[in-house]
Amino acid sequence: MTNKLFIYNTLSRNKEQFEPANPPFVGLYACGPTVYGDAHLGHARQAVVFDVLYRYLSHLGYRVRYVRNITDVGHLEHDADEGEDKIIKKARLESVEPMEVVQRYLNRYHDNMRLLNLIPPSIEPMASGHIIEQQQLVEKILDAGYAYEKNGSVYFDVARYSESHPYGRLSGRKTEDLLANTRPLDGQSEKNNPLDFALWKKADPSHLMKWPSRWGEGYPGWHLECSVMSTKYLGIPLDIHGGGMDLLFPHHECEIAQNVAGFGEPAVRFWMHHNMITINSQKMGRSLGNFITLDEIFTGSHRLLEQAYAPMTIKFYILQAHYRSPLDFSNQALQASEKGLLRLLKAAAAIDSLPAGPESAFDVDELSHRCGEAMNDDLNTPILISHLFEGVKWINEIQESRASLVKEDLKKLKELYDTWLFSILGLQMISPGDSGKGITGELIELILQLRTEAKNRKDFEAADRIRAVLTDLGVVIMDRKQGTDWEFSKDA
Amino acid sequence: MTNKLFIYNTLSRNKEQFEPANPPFVGLYACGPTVYGDAHLGHARQAVVFDVLYRYLSHLGYRVRYVRNITDVGHLEHDADEGEDKIIKKARLESVEPMEVVQRYLNRYHDNMRLLNLIPPSIEPMASGHIIEQQQLVEKILDAGYAYEKNGSVYFDVARYSESHPYGRLSGRKTEDLLANTRPLDGQSEKNNPLDFALWKKADPSHLMKWPSRWGEGYPGWHLECSVMSTKYLGIPLDIHGGGMDLLFPHHECEIAQNVAGFGEPAVRFWMHHNMITINSQKMGRSLGNFITLDEIFTGSHRLLEQAYAPMTIKFYILQAHYRSPLDFSNQALQASEKGLLRLLKAAAAIDSLPAGPESAFDVDELSHRCGEAMNDDLNTPILISHLFEGVKWINEIQESRASLVKEDLKKLKELYDTWLFSILGLQMISPGDSGKGITGELIELILQLRTEAKNRKDFEAADRIRAVLTDLGVVIMDRKQGTDWEFSKDA
Repeated sequence: MTNKLFIYNTLSRNKEQFEPANPPFVGLYACGPTVYGDAHLGHARQAVVFDVLYRYLSHLGYRVRYVRNITDVGHLEHDADEGEDKIIKKARLESVEPMEVVQRYLNRYHDNMRLLNLIPPSIEPMASGHIIEQQQLVEKILDAGYAYEKNGSVYFDVARYSESHPYGRLSGRKTEDLLANTRPLDGQSEKNNPLDFALWKKADPSHLMKWPSRWGEGYPGWHLECSVMSTKYLGIPLDIHGGGMDLLFPHHECEIAQNVAGFGEPAVRFWMHHNMITINSQKMGRSLGNFITLDEIFTGSHRLLEQAYAPMTIKFYILQAHYRSPLDFSNQALQASEKGLLRLLKAAAAIDSLPAGPESAFDVDELSHRCGEAMNDDLNTPILISHLFEGVKWINEIQESRASLVKEDLKKLKELYDTWLFSILGLQMISPGDSGKGITGELIELILQLRTEAKNRKDFEAADRIRAVLTDLGVVIMDRKQGTDWEFSKDA
Repeated sequence: MTNKLFIYNTLSRNKEQFEPANPPFVGLYACGPTVYGDAHLGHARQAVVFDVLYRYLSHLGYRVRYVRNITDVGHLEHDADEGEDKIIKKARLESVEPMEVVQRYLNRYHDNMRLLNLIPPSIEPMASGHIIEQQQLVEKILDAGYAYEKNGSVYFDVARYSESHPYGRLSGRKTEDLLANTRPLDGQSEKNNPLDFALWKKADPSHLMKWPSRWGEGYPGWHLECSVMSTKYLGIPLDIHGGGMDLLFPHHECEIAQNVAGFGEPAVRFWMHHNMITINSQKMGRSLGNFITLDEIFTGSHRLLEQAYAPMTIKFYILQAHYRSPLDFSNQALQASEKGLLRLLKAAAAIDSLPAGPESAFDVDELSHRCGEAMNDDLNTPILISHLFEGVKWINEIQESRASLVKEDLKKLKELYDTWLFSILGLQMISPGDSGKGITGELIELILQLRTEAKNRKDFEAADRIRAVLTDLGVVIMDRKQGTDWEFSKDA
């Protein structure tokens, strides 16, 4: 199989032609959520970006195994190994079993992902389900001499590792600079060096999530699970490892160090990182009051939101930016995106009813080719979308009888949208009352037709009554020159 | 808190008044699916029965933690410990990673359960996620002298255990009879006694799912996970442990033996077992060709099915039998059930539009009281449903102006159905095009009203056209004396 897919590899800082290590199989690993709270816009971006990659690789004919982990234990606050495990903290506050908290948020995360129309990963391994494997890797790293045990905890020895390996290469940092910039160790820390990170952490007696080990009761350090679960399910080397740019350092840097120390090689061929999001140009954070969960955005229940935004609008907005560009969320931008998406979906839905003409004014094959070129250029979804909007112009011109396509080309145009808009970008028709069978839209069309007939026979009472009922149901109708148009109202 | 809930305890073979060990908390554990294939009718019954119990206990004011395990490893064929692990077999056939098979079927199981409108359990622990805990229990049982190691495997010593404990008490079997009835050991077996069962099984080199242990590479025996995960998340003693009657022996019997040997006590207070299902009076089995998955039944794609059956029809049918009675599936029975459910749902939906009368012909409080009595009598859902049908008669009489209820009683009647039909039985309105917002139903009502108006002004062309469009959309309309009725057609 040959293709011209180029992917920007964070490791080389270049777009490199992608070929899997063992075609036709592709191993794809993406860092998933820590399930101690509701998913927010950052989780949506992560999941949407790698879903599109998964879909596109499958479209190219690869057999992709897509692994996205669930961090349910061991995620320490920031990089402070001294910090309390986030999940345990939440569990204590709520007086519930940690795994009950995990399950609740995992279910909610899955619900959100389903609304975004994402394909579930092939495997969603949980950190707590791989404690033995993590202990095994700690032992390997200890045996290799790149870690040390202290008081029941095991730490990775960054200084020792740096003597022979380029720690900081992925994130472009120099160990000397890192060392120079770290705060001096306070008396509490037992690490030899502030850059060292925990592989295994001794548990306090009050700690709820802990397991026995040869170092005593404890739990794995956060970076460890990804080294373990990515290689367990995808082998070494694995083709693509992705995540947000915020994970570049220290998470992915530590992962590489663990892989080299434990497996003798970095294990990952392509590192892909998507950029961060901002809200009204500000970093998102709970303390800043601009932390918006997906539930809030889908229901419009956050003070910064002027309305609810459909999952497809959020997804489309994410795809309108290249994954390596920053993305700013604002009401204005989302409303523009919503309009654009509706225009695109309406045009795609209209193809079926376009009349075939005697000749073709547009080159559908060429447009389709350009769609592929856009995706091959490091998943350039904004360019792909601009090509799809080019097609909208054509569709409108054909609707207005200002141009035509022959029957065969109309069929190809239909396929083009089916492939790129629906299969690869994974977008869906928006309609809150729609069961997926299109029944609601068709019923509304029937009602509008009956209303037009009422107006034609001057039965304005009936026409107004119909409008009133539809308005009650959240359907806004707009009488235009060409006929009556409708859409679901914002708060439907 | 006091209540009069009586539950049949398999252990005592009596209905016993239920009180939790630590009110208001209730620990509920139910044996969940082995995820190596699609869920079938038996899985639906299991999940529906314990969902109703979960809902009812919550309704009584208890704070229920509901744990349903996922068996993803170690489920040996029948009781033959020599057999191949089912999941591994499937994974080998498909040449995929076992956890990829597990994830696929787990996702499908969740999809099925969602269609049945079941509340997700508080925790869904996986066997593969609790290997260390299982190894710890094996060690405890070894230390207590109730197990022996042989060639890297560890077996529970049933004969030794039986000397001082009533093995067979739950299932009503006598160890001597069991021993007399077992086939002689062939030369291959390493067990001391055919009744012994594996706690830890040595893995062949080709075995895909295995973990290191002090006895070598292996995997836990199937019975072990439930002892471990039920007590880990619910404590000892735990209030209710449920499952199908097919699990009574050996699974639950072995579980008790493990608990006594390892924890020093049986651990479970109430054992609840639901009865089995048959298909056209035959046991269901792959080899018999009558193995029907839930996907097949929801889509009507099995040769034994005359039509598709909605998830709510299946659920209602299950609830029309007491959980301890056998349940036979047939087209005839399901079609009768579907009709009954629609009658019930239609009546419940009509309450809002019933006119209040000057006096009440029926005693709503008393009916509500009887609903509670039915559930308190070992979850007697068929009796509860018969009370709900009694209410349908009332609703019909009121609709036909042959009886009345005062306003306050109409409100209570509405609450009665909201509570017992929707909250506790967890049934939902059936309508394939319904998004849950009721928009489709209301649109259809509007269209029917417009059609009636067309007929009134003798515009039969319009009336027929409306009927044709609705028919296309899968809506069947029926002109009756009292007006026009409608329903979704069977294949909608």
